[in-house]
Amino acid sequence: MISPAYRDPLYRDPSATVAERVRDLLGRMTLPEKVGQVNQRLYGWHAYERTPDGHRLTDTFRDEVSAFGGIGALYGLQRADPWSGVGFADGLDAHDGARMAREVQRHARENTRLGIPVLLVEEMPHGHQALDGTVLPVNLAVGATWDPALYAEAVAGASAELRARGAHLALVSALDVVRDPRWGRTEECFTEDPYLAARMTGALVEGARSSGVGVVLKHFAGQGASVGGRNSAATELGARELHEIHLAAARAGVSAGAAGVMAAYNEFDGVPCVANRYLLTEVLRDRWGFEGIVMADGGAIDRLVRLTGDPVTAGARALDAGCDLSLWDASFARLAEAVDRGLVTEERLDAAVTRVLSLKFRLGLFEDEPAASVDSGALHAGPALKGQAGKGSSGGSDAPGVLAGPGMPADPGDVAGPVDLAGLGERVARASVTLLVHEGDVLPLSPGTRRIAVLGPNADAVAPLLGDYTAPQRPGTGVSVLQGIRAAAAPGTEVTYAEGCALVGDDVSQVDSAAALAAAAEVAVLVLGGSSARSGDTVFDTNGAALAGSGPPSGMTCGEGVDLADLSLPIGQRALLDAVSATGTPVVVVLVQGRPHAVPAPRTSTWALLSAWYPGPRGGRAVADVLFGNAEPRGRLPVSVPRSAAHLPVFYNAKDHRYRGYVDQSAEARHVFGHGLSYTTVEYGAPRLSRRRR
Amino acid sequence: MISPAYRDPLYRDPSATVAERVRDLLGRMTLPEKVGQVNQRLYGWHAYERTPDGHRLTDTFRDEVSAFGGIGALYGLQRADPWSGVGFADGLDAHDGARMAREVQRHARENTRLGIPVLLVEEMPHGHQALDGTVLPVNLAVGATWDPALYAEAVAGASAELRARGAHLALVSALDVVRDPRWGRTEECFTEDPYLAARMTGALVEGARSSGVGVVLKHFAGQGASVGGRNSAATELGARELHEIHLAAARAGVSAGAAGVMAAYNEFDGVPCVANRYLLTEVLRDRWGFEGIVMADGGAIDRLVRLTGDPVTAGARALDAGCDLSLWDASFARLAEAVDRGLVTEERLDAAVTRVLSLKFRLGLFEDEPAASVDSGALHAGPALKGQAGKGSSGGSDAPGVLAGPGMPADPGDVAGPVDLAGLGERVARASVTLLVHEGDVLPLSPGTRRIAVLGPNADAVAPLLGDYTAPQRPGTGVSVLQGIRAAAAPGTEVTYAEGCALVGDDVSQVDSAAALAAAAEVAVLVLGGSSARSGDTVFDTNGAALAGSGPPSGMTCGEGVDLADLSLPIGQRALLDAVSATGTPVVVVLVQGRPHAVPAPRTSTWALLSAWYPGPRGGRAVADVLFGNAEPRGRLPVSVPRSAAHLPVFYNAKDHRYRGYVDQSAEARHVFGHGLSYTTVEYGAPRLSRRRR
Repeated sequence: MISPAYRDPLYRDPSATVAERVRDLLGRMTLPEKVGQVNQRLYGWHAYERTPDGHRLTDTFRDEVSAFGGIGALYGLQRADPWSGVGFADGLDAHDGARMAREVQRHARENTRLGIPVLLVEEMPHGHQALDGTVLPVNLAVGATWDPALYAEAVAGASAELRARGAHLALVSALDVVRDPRWGRTEECFTEDPYLAARMTGALVEGARSSGVGVVLKHFAGQGASVGGRNSAATELGARELHEIHLAAARAGVSAGAAGVMAAYNEFDGVPCVANRYLLTEVLRDRWGFEGIVMADGGAIDRLVRLTGDPVTAGARALDAGCDLSLWDASFARLAEAVDRGLVTEERLDAAVTRVLSLKFRLGLFEDEPAASVDSGALHAGPALKGQAGKGSSGGSDAPGVLAGPGMPADPGDVAGPVDLAGLGERVARASVTLLVHEGDVLPLSPGTRRIAVLGPNADAVAPLLGDYTAPQRPGTGVSVLQGIRAAAAPGTEVTYAEGCALVGDDVSQVDSAAALAAAAEVAVLVLGGSSARSGDTVFDTNGAALAGSGPPSGMTCGEGVDLADLSLPIGQRALLDAVSATGTPVVVVLVQGRPHAVPAPRTSTWALLSAWYPGPRGGRAVADVLFGNAEPRGRLPVSVPRSAAHLPVFYNAKDHRYRGYVDQSAEARHVFGHGLSYTTVEYGAPRLSRRRR
Repeated sequence: MISPAYRDPLYRDPSATVAERVRDLLGRMTLPEKVGQVNQRLYGWHAYERTPDGHRLTDTFRDEVSAFGGIGALYGLQRADPWSGVGFADGLDAHDGARMAREVQRHARENTRLGIPVLLVEEMPHGHQALDGTVLPVNLAVGATWDPALYAEAVAGASAELRARGAHLALVSALDVVRDPRWGRTEECFTEDPYLAARMTGALVEGARSSGVGVVLKHFAGQGASVGGRNSAATELGARELHEIHLAAARAGVSAGAAGVMAAYNEFDGVPCVANRYLLTEVLRDRWGFEGIVMADGGAIDRLVRLTGDPVTAGARALDAGCDLSLWDASFARLAEAVDRGLVTEERLDAAVTRVLSLKFRLGLFEDEPAASVDSGALHAGPALKGQAGKGSSGGSDAPGVLAGPGMPADPGDVAGPVDLAGLGERVARASVTLLVHEGDVLPLSPGTRRIAVLGPNADAVAPLLGDYTAPQRPGTGVSVLQGIRAAAAPGTEVTYAEGCALVGDDVSQVDSAAALAAAAEVAVLVLGGSSARSGDTVFDTNGAALAGSGPPSGMTCGEGVDLADLSLPIGQRALLDAVSATGTPVVVVLVQGRPHAVPAPRTSTWALLSAWYPGPRGGRAVADVLFGNAEPRGRLPVSVPRSAAHLPVFYNAKDHRYRGYVDQSAEARHVFGHGLSYTTVEYGAPRLSRRRR
């Protein structure tokens, strides 16, 4: 089947340099084959289907591979969530995922002329978004920990999970800086501070590399500055603002060896990022020397059609600007036509293909055995699996900054084995709990407390703890705040519960009965805030963003596509806080939230306010630990908390040029960036010698 | 006293070109004399003092002239307002103003080595801000007329008043584009639309030139984009946004022959405009070919000290960037030191002096006889007054674009005479009234209406009609809305009145009695909104902006330094609207306002909503004309009206890149740009031949 002439070409020789192998391979490729390597058109969950006794590759996938003689990458083979419609009934768990990944590679190798393997790309916003992927706290919670080392450890664990399932590249939000918390993706940002964002981004890349996974950093660039906090809107950014605020994290990620960056939906200076040569080439490559890939955000190249008038030109513009790999776009698949029509040079295409292939060589894809189920008539007599893969990934690199860290594990199990990732996520969650208000010594709860009322729409639910971009969880996964408090309370403590109100809306019918529970308790813990939990009812856009037209989808106030104008809590929640705080019982408000909400003053002066962000599945335990004093509230605000949407923006790092506030409201944040109280009291006194010198 | 060697130098020869005269004069100047020509340090009202039988020049002024052997310009000799503290008791009326202007020139000519006259610079934001200066509607009202020709006529009238009092340059806001109506200076903007702003700016410059007055356009550039709508804050603007949105008006003004532009307080791309060489030199001069002057905004150069560390460097940076004339700055007076220290070249200083002197020659200052009171031992045997001045101003120009229009009037009386400027202002006001909501056929008021209740804090007041930057008015000036309605109502109509509530605050004690008047009437006219009226209690910053720290100064919700976070009406006004609309009596809400306010839905479906903006002193008559149907509501929105501050920005010309609204509120404007109803109904039907062809 394979002509002898192709049996031992240079590109298959692991002892050659990556540059030599790429040059050799590129020289053998047809124009359509090149186009195939810069495309990533399929939704990964369309690549397989359920059979009575397992899963198999679909014709859709087979057709895509044959269409161009190979494909660059496959997105989200293992993604599971309400948008993809993938769940436990038909989706891939860890074992099946690893097996299907091998099937994909075997098919690509065996059914294409050159046998080029496929980059397997997965979402890993806070844990691998796949069935049985461990969910970690969202980035905003990570920012609140101010602990890059802890985060790197968690990322390494998540990456090991992802790598164990045969994937190579993790898509992770890291570059977006909070400028307007109305934006539903605020939860995906670490912070409003470029330095903290840069430190966390560096930790992210290093953590992933230590598990042999390449990170594609989302989103390049300036997406946090979208006008009005509206998702994927244009920015009005200028160069200084871009460089000082929005590029620092990307720069750090590139320095740390990121495998790629994702070109964002928004515009910079009137030009969409995917068509922005200044950003993708002048800054990223010419100035920073980046040699990884630029992946377009999902469908972003096709969005250019409304500017270019036709898809062929759209693809050409994106390639010319510096995009190397599409995501779901139809227009990028027509690059051969673009080259034929002279809209872009074949040299530009070669450069993109070179970057994609280099990454494949560096990540060891050509040495990756299709594993156990490997066919005896395998394509080539490759090196032995163990050791060689690691050598291929690091030793063969000619781009020292990119993935030149510790070698990729030969057997993913080597890495994934001993790490208690869920426990690590819980540590991150605990470190992120931020005490914002503490009046009247409510906390920590006294061990002698015998009656606790736990109230509110986020009190007895796990889904709101998880954040956006999460896969379905197995039943019984996670610990709600109510469960955490029940588990942590002293034996014999009476813990009552009422929902009090729905997450959204103005229904106050349950408020009085909840307040009655508060009145009968020694302390009321009120768990309010938001939720990014998607459901079967959620309507999605073609890129997986929630399509939220007229009103908030039930149970969703945050996440991609869910931008809010008003940052106050919904009417029901405010009524509940008002009624509960009017009982005279001390109140602890715990906010489960993906953005800073403005909380009105309660009707008591004995209260505390904590933000738990989206702390992940075991968040309830982390919160309970802080409430009972088993852990310090260590979190510090990674973002300014506004008083209302009316005085936005409130980020601390605005250029201060002698201007003043508003006459009707303070222009200052309700809680400033970096704020966070603790249980410890520090006193300063006269210095005292602990020991006299003799 | 004057040495014979200076009797007939070339620069005094009106038959020489401006370029020749400037070159000659510059060659004779010492370094300190040059520095004097680029400075404008004094508050003009410090240049004179009251005497028992008139006014005289102060030692402050005399000292300033001697300090540098002449000064470039004198700002606001005739300015009167609560900030300057100038009123009718001690200030300059039209006659005294003209006389003092002559005194200033005579002093400068007779007491300096080279006898260089002084540019007299005045505020003319909407009429000359001087005692007896006619107040016109603010720019936002002008924008609502969409009538550049009418505006040009009004500007010509105002300029004639100013010129008649001996002034040469009018400072007028025109370049600021509304992007965030929280900004207190929104009233000074024409619109959110670059094209409309450009047309109005062109009309402004042409109108002023037709009366021999040069316009200095405020503010260059991008000030409307200050972050958060906070006065003089930094912008985050990029180049595209700057050029497409913020520079169009300036470009039009420059093309129309503006005498100058004022460099703004804000930053562009991290560099304050007064130090921004890209803006002041590359764009303005190199690209556009502008030959007029760049004046710094008041004290803006001194604000650079916090960046440069010392005043000498601050002045050097501003000069180097392209500033030609300071305003009140101390640092610009130390340019000789800056040249000596090598911080800026003398060539740059020469260029600035050249532009200032060129303007003086072009405006005919060297030919302007110190008039009637001229001393017999006058400095030079100049040409006869009449005719020559006009010749000097136009014929001598070597910069065709700048002030090369109709010659300056020899005798200001020639122009100012017949124009009924107050009547012209009333026409503008009438054309600006914008009907936003009309439900249930309330308008126009039926001639048969016999009982009208006129209610609200802005109903019986003239001060709120005027806007910011206005001088004290003589008692009895102006027509309030109540007065206008009383005058326009049919004989025998009962017009009742109550204030109902204060302009600001939450006092609702008068609401019930006002609602009772509404209940007893056939229609209630509710005059709500804001006010920029300064008072003796207002505290001011050194540049005349209101210093509003913690709460709204009584009676002020708008104007320079009065930025609002919340765009809804104050609680008292909302309560009044609620109570009045609950009576069942049809309601007409008239907003007197300098920015678009968000008006809540009333409790009636028979109501109308009009914006009268700040319509000027006779605004009450204009409003009454529209209410009674004597005039169509011709105004159309020059700005989008938001639903609340939470969904800002709402300008219509945002870049639309496939993004959606908020999930909790509409992202669309409450009333869109260009909206405005009329009393006319238009029906479309099948075409019908009015006459058969034979």
